[in-house]
Amino acid sequence: MLAERQSFVTHLECSMTGDRCEADQVHGLSRVGRPLLVRYDLAALAAHLDRDALERRDTDLWRWRELLPVRQTRDIVSLGEIETPLVPLPRAGGSNVLVKDEGRLPTGSFKARGLVMAVSMAKALGVTRIAMPTNGNAGAALAAYATRCGIKTVVFCPDDTPEINVREIALQGARVWRVNGLIDDCGAIVAEGAKQGRWYDVSTLKEPYRIEGKKTMGLELAAQFGWRLPDAIFYPTGGGTGLIGMWKAFDELEALGWIGPERPKMFAVQAAGCAPIVKAFDDGVEHAERWENAETIAAGIRVPRAVGDFLILRAVRESGGKALAVGDDAIERAVVQAAKQDGLLLCPEGGATLAAYHDALAAGLVGKSDRVVLFNCATGLKYPMPDDSRTLDRHAPIDFDAL
Amino acid sequence: MLAERQSFVTHLECSMTGDRCEADQVHGLSRVGRPLLVRYDLAALAAHLDRDALERRDTDLWRWRELLPVRQTRDIVSLGEIETPLVPLPRAGGSNVLVKDEGRLPTGSFKARGLVMAVSMAKALGVTRIAMPTNGNAGAALAAYATRCGIKTVVFCPDDTPEINVREIALQGARVWRVNGLIDDCGAIVAEGAKQGRWYDVSTLKEPYRIEGKKTMGLELAAQFGWRLPDAIFYPTGGGTGLIGMWKAFDELEALGWIGPERPKMFAVQAAGCAPIVKAFDDGVEHAERWENAETIAAGIRVPRAVGDFLILRAVRESGGKALAVGDDAIERAVVQAAKQDGLLLCPEGGATLAAYHDALAAGLVGKSDRVVLFNCATGLKYPMPDDSRTLDRHAPIDFDAL
Ligand SMILES: Cc1ncc(COP(=O)(O)O)c(C=O)c1O
Ligand SMILES: Cc1ncc(COP(=O)(O)O)c(C=O)c1O
Repeated sequence: MLAERQSFVTHLECSMTGDRCEADQVHGLSRVGRPLLVRYDLAALAAHLDRDALERRDTDLWRWRELLPVRQTRDIVSLGEIETPLVPLPRAGGSNVLVKDEGRLPTGSFKARGLVMAVSMAKALGVTRIAMPTNGNAGAALAAYATRCGIKTVVFCPDDTPEINVREIALQGARVWRVNGLIDDCGAIVAEGAKQGRWYDVSTLKEPYRIEGKKTMGLELAAQFGWRLPDAIFYPTGGGTGLIGMWKAFDELEALGWIGPERPKMFAVQAAGCAPIVKAFDDGVEHAERWENAETIAAGIRVPRAVGDFLILRAVRESGGKALAVGDDAIERAVVQAAKQDGLLLCPEGGATLAAYHDALAAGLVGKSDRVVLFNCATGLKYPMPDDSRTLDRHAPIDFDAL
Repeated sequence: MLAERQSFVTHLECSMTGDRCEADQVHGLSRVGRPLLVRYDLAALAAHLDRDALERRDTDLWRWRELLPVRQTRDIVSLGEIETPLVPLPRAGGSNVLVKDEGRLPTGSFKARGLVMAVSMAKALGVTRIAMPTNGNAGAALAAYATRCGIKTVVFCPDDTPEINVREIALQGARVWRVNGLIDDCGAIVAEGAKQGRWYDVSTLKEPYRIEGKKTMGLELAAQFGWRLPDAIFYPTGGGTGLIGMWKAFDELEALGWIGPERPKMFAVQAAGCAPIVKAFDDGVEHAERWENAETIAAGIRVPRAVGDFLILRAVRESGGKALAVGDDAIERAVVQAAKQDGLLLCPEGGATLAAYHDALAAGLVGKSDRVVLFNCATGLKYPMPDDSRTLDRHAPIDFDAL
């Protein structure tokens, strides 16, 4: 019974108009060009499963299978999607600050959550060729999962994407192209190829299942916090799937009766050199304009234009949070601070959330006693680090006092 | 009660002579210069805890607290030591081959298991300065945990240690020296400083608690396999702590009555360019000679001389396994194979175990139906990868057929 009906998906729905689409078919954007959201029979799910039964399951991502779109176990293309730990940051953050350390997932980033779902669904629906624009981490996750189930992949990334990302994508079996442009320029090439019927386009939010995978960040947080959510979440926001996904997760959990109506303040963190969501938030508008000449060391959030802009802004506003921009200097300082004070290596995007947390604290947007989660979305090992080593000649006399 | 008596440690014991030492004191090697092993009151432990109770606990490393040396919860210096997943390798390995993916641990390697224990014990025992020789991963784990609890650290590594390792060590707050030599040359400097009273020496097996942390690999495997161990384990062997630790774990689990007397065949995998344990195994001797001019791309297993050589050899022989050497070419091919066939990025040391598995299969040392575990001890992201990307000019006409 469970094997036959793992998932309680009923249909897909346009995030703008509410128009319905059939489940179990290949979809891109809705008729009006907006993201599609997956809907579930939550009443039936609540009758089938309760929190206690869920808590007895293994903690990996698939414990949430009824709230995920993959119907058949045999379609799951897994690389070991563990629940990521919450690591305290007592000195660099404070006694109530926890880092959700997403670098522990396959391919070293939270993109694995979205792509394990997109690829498993692509496999279930018979897709054989996929393409995607990426700032690095998403392409790496796509390559790994697609290769694992024999789907061919072509990935396009800005030519200054972090070197390790580009190499891991290729090593994991995808064809990877460096493009002289930004991620939306890469996205235009993918869209053109998709129009020509060359491949399926799994760009952020153009494909309906990545967000379902990212949703598990919210589901996990609820379980890890004993079904009372934290007071604030700081999320490094590029395309924003994770933030939108968590917001959706909280609504679904409330509909199931597993959490109450309280929500964390959602802080969408961007880099000062690419902050379209922050500008739209401050301007009080519903859609963001493209950010020209985007530049930041936090490659994952260098996204000049997000197709789900209105969904990000809506979640942040409803939550009583804010969109915040931090400079590259502050990002670098935060990475060094977390490493040197608490021994935790963050990626630049994770560093951005720590920097934004300090700003929010100073501005009174959060208090010291608030329970705060910062998202470190990838392992810091993928990014350039300074060389602070010294050399020692073991054949010369060693001055131990100087070591 | 549990908080007061987390651990069931009774004493420490020389691995060669069986001589007893007091627990809860700072120790190095035994009087005869051999590793000390921690002993527990297993009868009392068995009366206190059963397998079912253990299985209801969170799956992280601290679920095993009674079998670990740290007595007080407040001394635990944690960065989120999750249970690592077993990832199938269906094409590059076969349908019964699982990779224990240790790169998911803090600082991206299984060295976190040993160092979280060594540092927590050092903290408990009042140590304030630590030094260590490293091929990279151990130093990174030491730096992170020591920094986290305010212990000062000095790390010495061969000057050609993988670049990312050297940088992460420094960024995480340790002082790091590149030495013109190999890991045992670095070890000599650490030993000299320790003799002068400058720091505590936490070299592999010179300090009794790292092995207790590494032991959790064996404990986890037992639980993950439903208390029936796999048929064979392939372990990339440098200092050998992990292999010795797992062997010790199995004995302790049997004494608790949690597993039977069956044991996996233990395969100690080394690089052809540095294979002292393989030579000693083939020569039928109990101790290994130093390997001169050691050279391999698998930095973690470039260990010319291991202080626990006799313990490694004893475990491998008792298990009915073997010590195997694989060339760097085979290591590189195995890494590419796992990535391109199964989407799993291995570190070179992990690649070595896959290469050795193929050799063992061909030689009839294991069968296709044997349930096999390969240890991937670090994330592949730390190591150099080829650049197989291509460039695309988005301003020129795009030939989609060529993408
Ligand atoms: C490390 C990292 N952080 C944050 C982001 C932004 O994620 P999202 O697209 O969900 O906003 C990315 C996306 O590439 C990333 O790689
Ligand atoms: C990736 C990797 N594999 C294997 C080893 C060898 O481990 P052991 O010292 O337990 O033999 C090391 C040690 O540095 C390592 O870093």
